[in-house]
Amino acid sequence: MSAFDRTEFELRTTRAQGLMAEQDLAALLLTTEPEVRYFTGFLTRFWESPTRPWFVIVPASGKPVAVIPSIGAALMAQTWIDDIRTWSAPDLTDDGVTLLSETLGELVPDGARVGCPDGHETHLRMPLADHARVKAQIGRRRIVGDAGILRTLRMVKSDAEVARIEAACQTAGRAFARVPEIARAGTPLDEVFRKFQMLCLEEGADWVPYLAGAADQHGYDDVISPASDRPLSQGDVLMLDTGMVRDGYFCDFDRNWTVGPASQAVATAHATLVEASDAAFDLARPGVTAADLFHAMNRILTLGGAGTDAGRLGHGLGMSLTEWPSLIPSDHTVLQPGMVLTLEPGIAVGDKIMVHEENILITPTGARFLSPRSAPEIPHL
Amino acid sequence: MSAFDRTEFELRTTRAQGLMAEQDLAALLLTTEPEVRYFTGFLTRFWESPTRPWFVIVPASGKPVAVIPSIGAALMAQTWIDDIRTWSAPDLTDDGVTLLSETLGELVPDGARVGCPDGHETHLRMPLADHARVKAQIGRRRIVGDAGILRTLRMVKSDAEVARIEAACQTAGRAFARVPEIARAGTPLDEVFRKFQMLCLEEGADWVPYLAGAADQHGYDDVISPASDRPLSQGDVLMLDTGMVRDGYFCDFDRNWTVGPASQAVATAHATLVEASDAAFDLARPGVTAADLFHAMNRILTLGGAGTDAGRLGHGLGMSLTEWPSLIPSDHTVLQPGMVLTLEPGIAVGDKIMVHEENILITPTGARFLSPRSAPEIPHL
Repeated sequence: MSAFDRTEFELRTTRAQGLMAEQDLAALLLTTEPEVRYFTGFLTRFWESPTRPWFVIVPASGKPVAVIPSIGAALMAQTWIDDIRTWSAPDLTDDGVTLLSETLGELVPDGARVGCPDGHETHLRMPLADHARVKAQIGRRRIVGDAGILRTLRMVKSDAEVARIEAACQTAGRAFARVPEIARAGTPLDEVFRKFQMLCLEEGADWVPYLAGAADQHGYDDVISPASDRPLSQGDVLMLDTGMVRDGYFCDFDRNWTVGPASQAVATAHATLVEASDAAFDLARPGVTAADLFHAMNRILTLGGAGTDAGRLGHGLGMSLTEWPSLIPSDHTVLQPGMVLTLEPGIAVGDKIMVHEENILITPTGARFLSPRSAPEIPHL
Repeated sequence: MSAFDRTEFELRTTRAQGLMAEQDLAALLLTTEPEVRYFTGFLTRFWESPTRPWFVIVPASGKPVAVIPSIGAALMAQTWIDDIRTWSAPDLTDDGVTLLSETLGELVPDGARVGCPDGHETHLRMPLADHARVKAQIGRRRIVGDAGILRTLRMVKSDAEVARIEAACQTAGRAFARVPEIARAGTPLDEVFRKFQMLCLEEGADWVPYLAGAADQHGYDDVISPASDRPLSQGDVLMLDTGMVRDGYFCDFDRNWTVGPASQAVATAHATLVEASDAAFDLARPGVTAADLFHAMNRILTLGGAGTDAGRLGHGLGMSLTEWPSLIPSDHTVLQPGMVLTLEPGIAVGDKIMVHEENILITPTGARFLSPRSAPEIPHL
């Protein structure tokens, strides 16, 4: 696991502080894993435990300040952060509330505004009752939204971030290439899921936070279910969709296979999905919008039939499995170099569906595949 | 993956509704993965995506109602829930806000109170700005805390839940027993982490959401860091701590090994840790408190030296890696049959620490180990 250069965090912090000044925010208050890690580099799977809240404050100038449970002090001390304030959590009567309030009181002028992410795709990772207590303990300081600052910052990746996402994509690509080793007619789907996660780890994943998939005759019903023990059988389409992590960054793409030769309908559906993602890829460049990519795919998908219930045809990707923007008609986010996107078309095949997904980087002049680009022909097991 | 009987969910719902009546709550509003799954059985790894909010409302009588993104409709329809209301998410202007508000308007009398978990170890998984909009759209209905109802319910496990936790513990136990196959002097710690996750999957884990650990000379500094590429060497103590999932339920325990023979200090520390968890196990029975178990362990741990910074010596366990109660001096939760706890003593060894963890069930007359009970002797690789 290699740490980013300190300049990566300095730049993130300086950019945040510039946007904060524009929005008249004297600090940012951050509570979730990617938000905390974005400004500190603090990487741990300990967030899986919902017990303890963790806080980072980005002041108007200077380095971020960590207000965290003492169990995290040693690890946080390995990051570039100097000001680390800890309490012994869990504390049933005051679980960081006073320490956080006092720190805000010290870093934020009375009457000033503290930005806390409150918009789409965000949540507050602390008890609501404690949030109310903090608000009551910080005088005339006000906690407001972050005016989308975290979204703005995180949506455009640095070269160092892109390198990690690409490494994750390549790792998953190697695992996908080995699926014929673990899946054949008769293999129960839950065994395929277990063994595919093992392949991801063997190929270099640090961990595998996300695996979805499905297998059914000539398509599937659903793309978010856990695996059943139903054995693969001739005529099945198998889909595996993974978000595995390497050095703290995700890939998120899928692959399809048929068990035995593909039916004409399945072969055509797969080729159409690839044609759709290729159309979005060909269009993708700075200045084009998220909605434009949606329409580029949707035009091709709806030529032959209906869409799916996924609600979107792709999304951002990075420290989280899914990030802004969304490839939907109403998202007019303008693409910029450094954005990493998934192209995720879906199509109806009879009464079933099929989906396909690639990961791309927006470059200064166009786009580049980060996932190993899929051929139009669906492979068979 | 085997579903619970419908009676499991009926009982959970009826119990919740009894407690709601006592607290004058006309409904519960739930937003997080374990809360939604507790009342519906809806199990998916799709929660890894932070994009979409998901809601379940438990009304004063009758079945829970799901208000969810359409991408989850097919999977939710496989549960016992009948009333499933969906919207096409993500929707940048109204991401379920109106649908949720209208549903609350229909299920909750005007002026009545809706309980939403707001206490220790909880959070609200929806954007804060949307939460404010819902509050503004539901007339004189008020969203208040849940008076600890979810905590009360989830803290005591049914036999069916215990069986799943025990299956997870046994799976992890088999993986721990095979660690000598994958770890020896010279093996980089990150390779140990990858291969241990593969062992967990091979032994039957559905997925491995949590793995922490450490290896260093005669103890370690930290128990929440990701793995470095430092090779194991003679004199190291290796610790692996996993929360792996089987059928939606976690285990959470660890094991220690020495690379080569143990030093006297390490051997004594390990024996003391096991003595401490055994003392808590021997004391554990209905009527004893969480604090009592803390003191039973802490008395033994502090005989020979200082404690650690973990902040507690164990916790609840189930649908989440960590749950209420906490084994700390201030948690006076009275143990009841069906509670599942971790016993997690920590001890200083020179300038390092060591930790040890077991999982136990509180029975009507005492306690029972769910993890394969560790011997006092630390094994060596």
